[in-house]
Amino acid sequence: MKTLEPVPWVFTIPEYTPGTSKEEIARRYGAANPIKLASNENPLGPSPKALQAIGAALTSSHIYPDPDSKDLRTAASRFFGCNIEGLIAGNGSDEIIDLICRAYLKPGDEVIIPSCTFSYYGIAARACGASVAQSPMKAHRIDMDGIKAAISPKTKAIFVANPNNPTGTYLPKDEVLSLIDKVPKNVLLIMDEAYGAFVRADDFLSTTSLSQSKSNLITIHTLSKSHGLAGLRVGFGIATTEIISTMLRIKPPFNVNILAQKAGEAALYDEDFLKKTLAHARDSLDMLYEAFDRLGLAYVRSQTNFVLVHIGKGSKRVYEDLLKKGIITRHMANIGLDEYIRVSIGLPEENSAFIAALTEIL
Amino acid sequence: MKTLEPVPWVFTIPEYTPGTSKEEIARRYGAANPIKLASNENPLGPSPKALQAIGAALTSSHIYPDPDSKDLRTAASRFFGCNIEGLIAGNGSDEIIDLICRAYLKPGDEVIIPSCTFSYYGIAARACGASVAQSPMKAHRIDMDGIKAAISPKTKAIFVANPNNPTGTYLPKDEVLSLIDKVPKNVLLIMDEAYGAFVRADDFLSTTSLSQSKSNLITIHTLSKSHGLAGLRVGFGIATTEIISTMLRIKPPFNVNILAQKAGEAALYDEDFLKKTLAHARDSLDMLYEAFDRLGLAYVRSQTNFVLVHIGKGSKRVYEDLLKKGIITRHMANIGLDEYIRVSIGLPEENSAFIAALTEIL
Repeated sequence: MKTLEPVPWVFTIPEYTPGTSKEEIARRYGAANPIKLASNENPLGPSPKALQAIGAALTSSHIYPDPDSKDLRTAASRFFGCNIEGLIAGNGSDEIIDLICRAYLKPGDEVIIPSCTFSYYGIAARACGASVAQSPMKAHRIDMDGIKAAISPKTKAIFVANPNNPTGTYLPKDEVLSLIDKVPKNVLLIMDEAYGAFVRADDFLSTTSLSQSKSNLITIHTLSKSHGLAGLRVGFGIATTEIISTMLRIKPPFNVNILAQKAGEAALYDEDFLKKTLAHARDSLDMLYEAFDRLGLAYVRSQTNFVLVHIGKGSKRVYEDLLKKGIITRHMANIGLDEYIRVSIGLPEENSAFIAALTEIL
Repeated sequence: MKTLEPVPWVFTIPEYTPGTSKEEIARRYGAANPIKLASNENPLGPSPKALQAIGAALTSSHIYPDPDSKDLRTAASRFFGCNIEGLIAGNGSDEIIDLICRAYLKPGDEVIIPSCTFSYYGIAARACGASVAQSPMKAHRIDMDGIKAAISPKTKAIFVANPNNPTGTYLPKDEVLSLIDKVPKNVLLIMDEAYGAFVRADDFLSTTSLSQSKSNLITIHTLSKSHGLAGLRVGFGIATTEIISTMLRIKPPFNVNILAQKAGEAALYDEDFLKKTLAHARDSLDMLYEAFDRLGLAYVRSQTNFVLVHIGKGSKRVYEDLLKKGIITRHMANIGLDEYIRVSIGLPEENSAFIAALTEIL
């Protein structure tokens, strides 16, 4: 008797490991008020203008969302300085990654993904039956030569997070331009700038400005971090009209929730909140660097709202001792960085609590 | 020179036609206050308990949603009387349909879809490279013999909406049980009960109670209609733990927006709102039937919150004349019912306005 069989590649998809929630730690250790520094969320909360916009839209929750996310995309195209026809909105940038894979990857295709980066690229690619070729890292940076060397006739897409998660490093302008130049025209280059707003380096180049004129380049953005809307799921893809209209064929009609559309639109016009967010991230990183220096811990200088810190052989124990004290970070063993934890910036008092706990544990 | 090529089946995907929005009609015809009876939304608005829950959760919008939608799924498993392990939550039932297709359909597989039903089944199946075999309708009802006859060795899945959209008809218990019995064990039977809550017929059987014990059956539900949350995107799939855990491998980690999770949970406990919704739908249908009888229009008796009415050869003109008067319905030409429009129930005054306008036009 034949039985129901899923697509064979479903079993190749690794599980995504989300940051542990406050509720989970409160339950597990009885911690009164856990501090979550595990998911690179915005410690200042959501954009206040976004909350106002949700309040005003609340009673329309029974109406289907605009399938075109028109007002949201208008705001985004102004914010990113690009053409609205070449901009797609998604249920978080996860959905943008998914739609790219579904529109361009067939079973048997191959994608190149750096060995130490955001794990969802590999999940989304494998969910389409593609296989993953890992390119090497070099001193916690994505190695552009390694990517170029990994390109084969089977390569269909390349994922590059700039800045990279979880290392916090970025790729300077000349390396990005050289990569764009080297990628064959039949291979899609996906530049994920989820943390792009946080970059302070002078020689950083956002590929947003290039992605509507290059035929095989797409730039991804999210409002989860810089605009404090992780819970609402708003992400964007920017590319040529041809790429975007191909992705639109796959996009489910009502993919972005009506309140997320309103909130995202308002947040994109909330310049004041973004300014505060970036200043706060800068100050928090400085605070963490200073503490790590004092504790004699090596760390990777970050262009994002989190930092990768070298704890050493006892890192798992330190991570767990932090949990017991109600402080949630990320242990990086599952990404091959056994001796590291990644800590997101928090409010000043949260950063202080993390530093105090870490000092006590070490 | 090679160029970037999407998956070949992307061009087989038909476009989804959403209901025209009030804003669009206001703009096009200068209608002051258009009435939308085009998308089967809940005229009573969202569940008030859902709105309260959103208000309370608003300041958590910067936190990632629970990847497991635990509280929402707990509420849903109580509501539907099923096991939580065999229940998945999605970004609307559209995402549930999508996840089923992605988990079970390979390029070259075939799905059976009745010729006059919800168009998204065919979109989602084709987005996975599957082809669609249409089964015939019989007097506006899904023809079970037609489905059985269409089953071939290539068949991988069968979509049945019960009650059906856009006809409003349902399949009685004996026909459903006979279909379940006849579907080969290696073919997935998807029963979509998006409108199941509205059914009044005594011999209707929800397959929810069977889908966790049958190895190839999945039942779909949504909170868009009965609970007034179309804008928030909350849908469910109920099946065996094996099917659900397979779908979970494909599910993006943060698929259901944090406010949607809270709203959905609260709405599922809002028994009062559901009761009012169902009573209102019943009264509205009676009001519409009476008007159609008076106008000498044939219609299909409905088990949902909308009704299909036969206008005749001038149906397109009537549909457009209604638009000009600010009343938005759906012309059914794109689904092969050239002489019909579908009208969703509205508030009593909206139903009256529709009837008055229709009377004037005819």
